Amino acid sequence: MKKVLIVEASARAQGLVEGRSGSLSRFLSDRFSSRWRHLNNEDIFIYRDVGAMPPQFMSHKWIAAAFTSEESRSAEQRALLCLSDQLIAEVAQADLILIATPMYNYGMPASLKAWFDQVIRVNKTFSFDLARGDFPLQPLLSGKTLVLLTSSGEFGFEPGGLRESMNHLGPHVRTLSHYLGVEEFHEIGIEYQEFGDDRHRASIDLARQAVDELVEQLSRGPVHLHADVFFTPGEASAALAGKP
Amino acid sequence: MKKVLIVEASARAQGLVEGRSGSLSRFLSDRFSSRWRHLNNEDIFIYRDVGAMPPQFMSHKWIAAAFTSEESRSAEQRALLCLSDQLIAEVAQADLILIATPMYNYGMPASLKAWFDQVIRVNKTFSFDLARGDFPLQPLLSGKTLVLLTSSGEFGFEPGGLRESMNHLGPHVRTLSHYLGVEEFHEIGIEYQEFGDDRHRASIDLARQAVDELVEQLSRGPVHLHADVFFTPGEASAALAGKP
Repeated sequence: MKKVLIVEASARAQGLVEGRSGSLSRFLSDRFSSRWRHLNNEDIFIYRDVGAMPPQFMSHKWIAAAFTSEESRSAEQRALLCLSDQLIAEVAQADLILIATPMYNYGMPASLKAWFDQVIRVNKTFSFDLARGDFPLQPLLSGKTLVLLTSSGEFGFEPGGLRESMNHLGPHVRTLSHYLGVEEFHEIGIEYQEFGDDRHRASIDLARQAVDELVEQLSRGPVHLHADVFFTPGEASAALAGKP
Repeated sequence: MKKVLIVEASARAQGLVEGRSGSLSRFLSDRFSSRWRHLNNEDIFIYRDVGAMPPQFMSHKWIAAAFTSEESRSAEQRALLCLSDQLIAEVAQADLILIATPMYNYGMPASLKAWFDQVIRVNKTFSFDLARGDFPLQPLLSGKTLVLLTSSGEFGFEPGGLRESMNHLGPHVRTLSHYLGVEEFHEIGIEYQEFGDDRHRASIDLARQAVDELVEQLSRGPVHLHADVFFTPGEASAALAGKP
């Protein structure tokens, strides 16, 4: 039995899934979770819809509270961190984190960034120690798999693609996922939404197939043995140290 | 006489500028604007503090309103776009846009992303035309200069730096600035904040000097003749088309 955290970030409701007004990232997320449930019917799902209910923004007081030691926090400070505590608890217990999000203006929706800003927190999801030299941050969680399902209006955001350098969604989420204890990362996306053409329809079909295949692959056994590993903590540290 | 729009995104107030509790990006912004005012005392400043008062998040209704033609919008839809109209008017009249922001989790604060999501809007800041083929978006504004002032806890985010691939702040803002009509882009940042060491203090000094020099350079004459040009619209289009 595994725990699956589903974070959905689209401002759009589902509606017509393949029409202009529906959320395609929610469509992929639904596809993933219904297939997953079919193959792993004892698993537990946690839903966190940050598109419909965005977390609060950072504030001066929030930052001060997060940097105050747990014993020294006032009642007001504990209350300020309450949502963050809850969101982190959801991440901490998840074996698999599914993030479904549209690309807005070449990056994540502000609501998803607000979620990351609440869950990446010192002494909760990462530790900070200057004795580690120039790399003082280390994740406190480990062993998680993250599946990122995206939709974008344009195309060519993949490595080597026409718009690779404009892509601040997937690469950003991948960078941040390290601090949530993610050791396996998968990304599937629908492209060409603004074009509404055959390429878009083909992209939907391909993404749906890729989701089905990924669910089967991840369901075969322990998540970490059967997935494409994009980075391990060791590789990430090597990358940080400038090694290939 | 020029108009200068100052967008500040730190969740922190100013306070002790060089201590842990003060906002370093606000410190740089203050330095810039006081020097600018000294040399260009007839210029008009517009302040927009998204750190203290974050714009609303995207919503399904907001998106529907933005994609409804101006004539067909209901009163409710016009009200939904009211803040966006105001923020866009501030951008449209600015000759110089100053964005001062901390790096939060390797990208912009959610509040700054919320601002971009409000100001990058079809038929207001960009036009969309499928007759343009694979590059249907074009900015409607032009001739603006953007100065990005940042602060980050770590270091090595510059091109070729140790953490270049983790940097989703400057490169993201630069990508988006094209859609605000920005043709000149400058970036100055303070690094090493989490280390609080000599490198950090040196970084503050260097950034302060760089700000002073940039203000002098930009004040000497028409902004677009005296600044380092990181990209022109032509170069941006060439980059989009995959050319070097």
